[in-house]
Amino acid sequence: MSEDRLFIGTRRYSSWSLRGWLAVRLAGLDVKEVLIPLKGGFTHQIGAVSPNGMVPCLRHAGVLIWDSLAIGEYCAELAAESGRHLWPADRALRAQARAVACEMHSGFRELRIAMPMNLGREFPGPEGEGRRTPTALADIARVEAIWSGCLAGHGGPFLFGAAFTLADAMFAPVCARFLTWQPELTRRSQDYVAAVRAHPLVAEWYDAAAREPAEWLLDKYENPA
Amino acid sequence: MSEDRLFIGTRRYSSWSLRGWLAVRLAGLDVKEVLIPLKGGFTHQIGAVSPNGMVPCLRHAGVLIWDSLAIGEYCAELAAESGRHLWPADRALRAQARAVACEMHSGFRELRIAMPMNLGREFPGPEGEGRRTPTALADIARVEAIWSGCLAGHGGPFLFGAAFTLADAMFAPVCARFLTWQPELTRRSQDYVAAVRAHPLVAEWYDAAAREPAEWLLDKYENPA
Repeated sequence: MSEDRLFIGTRRYSSWSLRGWLAVRLAGLDVKEVLIPLKGGFTHQIGAVSPNGMVPCLRHAGVLIWDSLAIGEYCAELAAESGRHLWPADRALRAQARAVACEMHSGFRELRIAMPMNLGREFPGPEGEGRRTPTALADIARVEAIWSGCLAGHGGPFLFGAAFTLADAMFAPVCARFLTWQPELTRRSQDYVAAVRAHPLVAEWYDAAAREPAEWLLDKYENPA
Repeated sequence: MSEDRLFIGTRRYSSWSLRGWLAVRLAGLDVKEVLIPLKGGFTHQIGAVSPNGMVPCLRHAGVLIWDSLAIGEYCAELAAESGRHLWPADRALRAQARAVACEMHSGFRELRIAMPMNLGREFPGPEGEGRRTPTALADIARVEAIWSGCLAGHGGPFLFGAAFTLADAMFAPVCARFLTWQPELTRRSQDYVAAVRAHPLVAEWYDAAAREPAEWLLDKYENPA
């Protein structure tokens, strides 16, 4: 029996797990998913399988890969062998796609802190207003500038055209945050968020998240101050 | 005349510039270096050339790439065409190298805040002690765990064996921080730091940094509280 595993956290909250899972599914890797419910801090069960104590973590063909972008690159290499492109096939576009994916990977900290991912909730009212801090709004403005440039340049509905790439996978949890916290967005951004939400894999993840048991709910995400 | 440019910040301080520059030089790209002195906050001149207002930023063959890891991947692709490997040639090792490079790319924030890069100074005394905060020390412990695993597994002197790869490029500024702030390190880590410091490209960068004019010095890095 195969030892191949993708370790993920609670789907409702784990934005990085979503990124890694999308890469694995886009590449069609045959791995067993193992979900470890997040505890809201360091989760010992994750520390036992992942070198940096974080999810996602992929064990495939004897290799252990514990970062969502590194998982994405690995999946892109495997997929390319069967003619599927997780990055744009054109080198210049691929470089741009990596630039925006990498900017997401290392940045937008203020947005991530202010507006955590919670696939089961919407906070459009006073809770949401309090999260629209100047630094979070600056992050959102930069996200929208990236999206706008890509969508205008490549025709949408996804960042690099008709195909959902790893750049979209990196931003999928940002779309989810926007659906939850509902900051003001341009029409172009709203359309992009809707396109990502409607992608079959994203929809599948949301559906699975909706079936997660109530005991996995974390108060800090369900009852934000 | 070629329009190709690599925009970098002050060599003495700009840790991300060093990473991107190493990738460009390892790949042998023929681009003109343009140094924009850092102001210690947002630098308008950088905002005028780089989409996210940060360096490094590479303009090559009409493509603009503004993240050091994305620059690394682009350089790796170009170098591979002439038989040079900026990532390990073996797929499993390449996946590991990307995992550690990506972990550096998105992490170790506490270390980076506590111990800024300053290639011209050493703070081994009281200033250094104050920077050894619990969170910075936790980051250093994780860095050493990564290094130890790679060095033991692949024989050194670099993380994936005899060749200096993009994984080493990502950690080169961490080596520089350790030389400045001198936290306690294992013998194995000290040897690795020395190997990186002695690499001809790293030595060339240090030499160029030492020739930078005094008016580029920033008080917050030269006189840490």
